[in-house]
Amino acid sequence: MSTREPHTAAILLIGDEILSGRTQDANLAHISRKLNEVGVQVREARVVPDIEAEIVAALDALRARYAYVFTTGGIGPTHDDITADSVAAAFGVACDYHPEAYAMMEATYPPGEFTEARKRMARTPVGASLIPNPVSKAPGFRMENVFVMAGIPRVMHVMLEGALPLLEGGARMLSRSIGVYLPEGRFGTALAALQSRFADVAIGSYPFARDGKYGASLVLRSPHPPRLDEAAEAVRVMLIGIGGEPFDEESP
Amino acid sequence: MSTREPHTAAILLIGDEILSGRTQDANLAHISRKLNEVGVQVREARVVPDIEAEIVAALDALRARYAYVFTTGGIGPTHDDITADSVAAAFGVACDYHPEAYAMMEATYPPGEFTEARKRMARTPVGASLIPNPVSKAPGFRMENVFVMAGIPRVMHVMLEGALPLLEGGARMLSRSIGVYLPEGRFGTALAALQSRFADVAIGSYPFARDGKYGASLVLRSPHPPRLDEAAEAVRVMLIGIGGEPFDEESP
Repeated sequence: MSTREPHTAAILLIGDEILSGRTQDANLAHISRKLNEVGVQVREARVVPDIEAEIVAALDALRARYAYVFTTGGIGPTHDDITADSVAAAFGVACDYHPEAYAMMEATYPPGEFTEARKRMARTPVGASLIPNPVSKAPGFRMENVFVMAGIPRVMHVMLEGALPLLEGGARMLSRSIGVYLPEGRFGTALAALQSRFADVAIGSYPFARDGKYGASLVLRSPHPPRLDEAAEAVRVMLIGIGGEPFDEESP
Repeated sequence: MSTREPHTAAILLIGDEILSGRTQDANLAHISRKLNEVGVQVREARVVPDIEAEIVAALDALRARYAYVFTTGGIGPTHDDITADSVAAAFGVACDYHPEAYAMMEATYPPGEFTEARKRMARTPVGASLIPNPVSKAPGFRMENVFVMAGIPRVMHVMLEGALPLLEGGARMLSRSIGVYLPEGRFGTALAALQSRFADVAIGSYPFARDGKYGASLVLRSPHPPRLDEAAEAVRVMLIGIGGEPFDEESP
């Protein structure tokens, strides 16, 4: 029996370039939002360097706990692309050319251009199934509950679209966002009381400064629309009661 | 004796809003680059939700292994700001008003405006030292090797500046970036051979598309300038040998 939390996922970003600050990750937020649309909640994310032992350790921790793990990065043609080998090591299988991937890629390149480096991109852990890549051909792959995707956002996006129908989701998390030009210190205690009253609705407060004015976005999250609406109304009433003028924001 | 890896750090981003995709993190890259300037290398990052047990588990794993841990988020005045309590729990100490922080903040607000919610921001684990916040007063804090900072980037930035002089760094990692309009599949094997020859220089290849042309940035990293220059020259010679026209890019 699996002890994985159903309808949950973790994201594993692989690459020295993210840890060094060279590359600003933009994949986490995209994956999270897309997974929520099919009822899968991202519960944790990690960033690890291009070191096999680190990738394996993170994969093993995450795939044991969450229903799904989505990785990005490290599946290109160069020596620092070691994700396929690392996933194979985590699952205790060999990493070898995937016949279907190899044949498809061989057919894609003109004669003589399916180089040794490009052949690397046809390697997967033995037993993996492919995730199509309509953008640049070299596929991602799935190994049990681990989905391995490219790091380049536009390639990752199409791979993720291919993976989404394979997931078993639960209720989609819905949200309401209420903005107010009041400092958090003015409503924090009252908001905490509302959180206690609506314990089944997750309430977050995110301060902002816009046009030189300070305020906050109060974000309510729950899979149950009536409960969400009830809590949102209670938040509005509370804010008006202390002199605020709450306004609806686009739901995050 | 500590088994922590010297001159290393981990980053712990705390907050549901990052995992849900509502907020795009911009702190990781900034912290990484600033730490590298003082010779501290970020080796791992994690993102956890606003759940005390999750924060504690991540903190304990990271603070045992790396010389420093930097957290962002969860130190504001609202009920979902639970970082101070979580750090206290990780260290097995109480979380209480820090006398210096309390006095400073009390003096900052007009009479009657140092609300219960704002007082929350004066709480730290017992024994913590403060990290000043010239922007919005409420301080961050340090508990042993853990530095706790705000999630709002402009506040985090000034807290980090205050923390940097306290760190013991090693050699700063230097880098060279060489661009070339060749697909990675053309030079991948030759680059792997150079990585073997310069095993002490970390070489990464990052593909890009600019103005409709495909290419890659080859990034070399080492603390030793002569070795870095030698490897960079070898990379240039290799690229020219296969018909490329390498150009220097701004070092990342």
